This record gives sequence, C-alpha cells and structure tokens, in this order.
Amino acid sequence: MKFYGYFRSSSAYRCRIAFNLKGLGYDFESVHLKSGAQKSTKYAALNPQKLVPTLVTDSGLELTQSLAIIEWLDEIYPEVSLLPGDIDLRAQVRAFAQIIACEIHPLQNLRVLKYIGANLNAGSDETSAWLGHWLYEGLEACEAILQKNGRDTAFCFGDAPGLADLCLVPQVFSATRFGVDISTLTRINEINATCAALPEFRGAEPARQPDYEE
Amino acid sequence: MKFYGYFRSSSAYRCRIAFNLKGLGYDFESVHLKSGAQKSTKYAALNPQKLVPTLVTDSGLELTQSLAIIEWLDEIYPEVSLLPGDIDLRAQVRAFAQIIACEIHPLQNLRVLKYIGANLNAGSDETSAWLGHWLYEGLEACEAILQKNGRDTAFCFGDAPGLADLCLVPQVFSATRFGVDISTLTRINEINATCAALPEFRGAEPARQPDYEE
Repeated sequence: MKFYGYFRSSSAYRCRIAFNLKGLGYDFESVHLKSGAQKSTKYAALNPQKLVPTLVTDSGLELTQSLAIIEWLDEIYPEVSLLPGDIDLRAQVRAFAQIIACEIHPLQNLRVLKYIGANLNAGSDETSAWLGHWLYEGLEACEAILQKNGRDTAFCFGDAPGLADLCLVPQVFSATRFGVDISTLTRINEINATCAALPEFRGAEPARQPDYEE
Repeated sequence: MKFYGYFRSSSAYRCRIAFNLKGLGYDFESVHLKSGAQKSTKYAALNPQKLVPTLVTDSGLELTQSLAIIEWLDEIYPEVSLLPGDIDLRAQVRAFAQIIACEIHPLQNLRVLKYIGANLNAGSDETSAWLGHWLYEGLEACEAILQKNGRDTAFCFGDAPGLADLCLVPQVFSATRFGVDISTLTRINEINATCAALPEFRGAEPARQPDYEE
C-alpha cells in the first residue's frame, strides 16, 4: 500500500494510528501541504480534493477521506478491530468520530485559516480566537458525550483503542498545538494520556514522521 | 423512532431521503435552529453538540451525526441497501459522502456564518463569497471524482440511489439556495435531476416539511 500524507495533517495522523494498531506497513510519500504540493497536477489526479490523506491499495484502488480509509482497512484487515461488532455501539463510535472529522477538524484546516486571513482580514489574534472557539466547543461536546455514556473504560468506548480514540488524539494534539486550554475536559485528558503511553499512538505523532519539520 | 430535524438542515435532509428510500416512518420533532431551539437544556441533553439531526430509536438509543444515523439505519433495515456490498466500492461511496459532510457542509453551517459575521465582520458580500468559494470548490471535486470513476450509471455509484446521492442532492440544493453557479458540473446536474424526479427525494425537500417557513 502507498500512503500519501503529511506529518502535521490530523487526518493523516488518524490513519497512521490505524495502521499501527493493525500492525500494517506501508510506503509513505509526503505531500508538503505548506508549500502547496497537494495542488500539483499529479497529486490532484490522484485526489481531486487536493487534500491528504490518499491511500493507493495493492490492487490500485485510490482511496481518499481518512474515515473511509480507516473503515476500508478495518474491513480488509479485520484481525484487530477498530469498530465494535454491535450495531448500536458502532453507530455511537462513528458519530463520535464524525463530530471530530465533520465539525471540528474542517474549521482548523490550513486552507480555511488561509482564507480567513486573506479574505476576511483575520490577523493572528482573530485566527487564534477562531481556532480556540471551534476546537474548544467541539471537544467540549465530545467530553459531554463521553460523560453521558458513563463508561468507565480505558478508551472512549471500550477497553481497547478504536476509531473514536484515533480521531480524538490528533484533535487533542491540535488543541495543544494551537494553545487551546482543554484542561477541564477530564475524561478526554485521561483517555489521551492512556493512548499517549501506547507505542502505536506514539509512533504516529507528527514529530516522529520522516517529513517532520520544526 | 423519533427524528429531530429542521427543514433547512442539509444533514437532516440526507436522513429524510434515507428514511424515504427505505420506506421507514418516524415521529418528527422540529428543532428551530434559526431561533436557537437546539441550545435548550432539554435538546442539549439529547445532543450535546446542539446540532440536528438526532434520532432516538425504539430501544431508546440516542444517535447523532447524519452519516452515522444513515449507516445505522442501513444495518438495522438492510432490505433497501444504501451502501454497496463490495468493500472497495463501499469505501469510495463513504469517501464521496464524507467530502460533502466533512469538507463542504461544515463551512456553510449557520453557526459558522454567524461567527464570520459577528467576529470577522463579514458582510453579505463576504458571506456570499465564502459560501460560493467552499461550495463550488467542494462540488467541483465531487464532479472530478464522478468523472474520474467514469461510470455511466443513473446515480453516483450505481443504478440505484444510495448514500452518495442522498448527500449530493441536499448539497446541490444549498448551492442553488445560496446562488452558487454549478451549471458546468454536468454529471452532478444530471444525477441531481434524476434524483429530483423520484418521490423519495421530492418528499424530503425542505419546502415539503411540516416545519417549513419561507
């Protein structure tokens, strides 16, 4: 498999954790988002959205969108399962992942930050406030859902890490990177610390990727 | 089942099409987004994200996030299938749905439009430009993916409507509503017209809902 990602992309980060949890290797190609490599003709032909990640499978299937890639991996390599077998619980896990992927992450994306800077004259204070607002509000909802579920499990929805956790950890990483204070979100911080101790999560951290830059 | 939605919400619209395609009935409760009903203590307890839709199943399960709700419906009521049985094709359909749900729709959400107006001083011209930019760019990527797949099917990924189509149609509806010109996106317009002729899609249109307002 060939995986196109970028060390700082939180959607690529999700996939890296999934690969690691499943013990799957892959060829990696970095797409340097900051310098606009995703807009090259060659990459756009692979991924018309001009975003990372893209996975090209051994059979040549070109897959985009992190959650679709992770569910594909889970269906093709089911040995270590990232989604629960129970239909009701699976829906709750997917919803949790989608809160992060559909509501929090899109608003912190580089292309959006560039747009509000260039077209809505957002300076660094306004950009920080934008990031703080959406990241805190979104993670606060995640915390409320975890509290509401009332589980006393090591991970979001059970005793093994799965789709919800591998979405949560990169989002917490972003919050930290952007200086958003989420210290009051106790269940999230507990789960994040539990995950951070695992080599599958540690090995997926941005600073440990071959394309990492300060 | 009890379904909490709002006539204008495109994520509720997706679910309505799914219910109709499956021939499922439900009790409907309108959550008046424009007047802030989603922020009530009662609704926030049900949906800590304070967004629509929410589905409360007959067994009392409280489900959020439209794509998770639709996959749950598809797993519980599999008679009319909304996702392909083939793993590779299913991943492509999910990715297409996620482009809309994770990349286009979040940027046109009411809460985001309110934020750019109140905090980034976006007037009506800037808001129109914002909407036009993200809706066109996103739907252009969807068109490129449909063209790249090279299918000559009536619907996005086959000869029956499914998850991709029920995400696409509400997004095209939004583009029209916001005055975004997508006339050059020929495959999308063809599929949209095919869907619009079906009673399951027509019956889900915002103007046909009990809570519709001009």
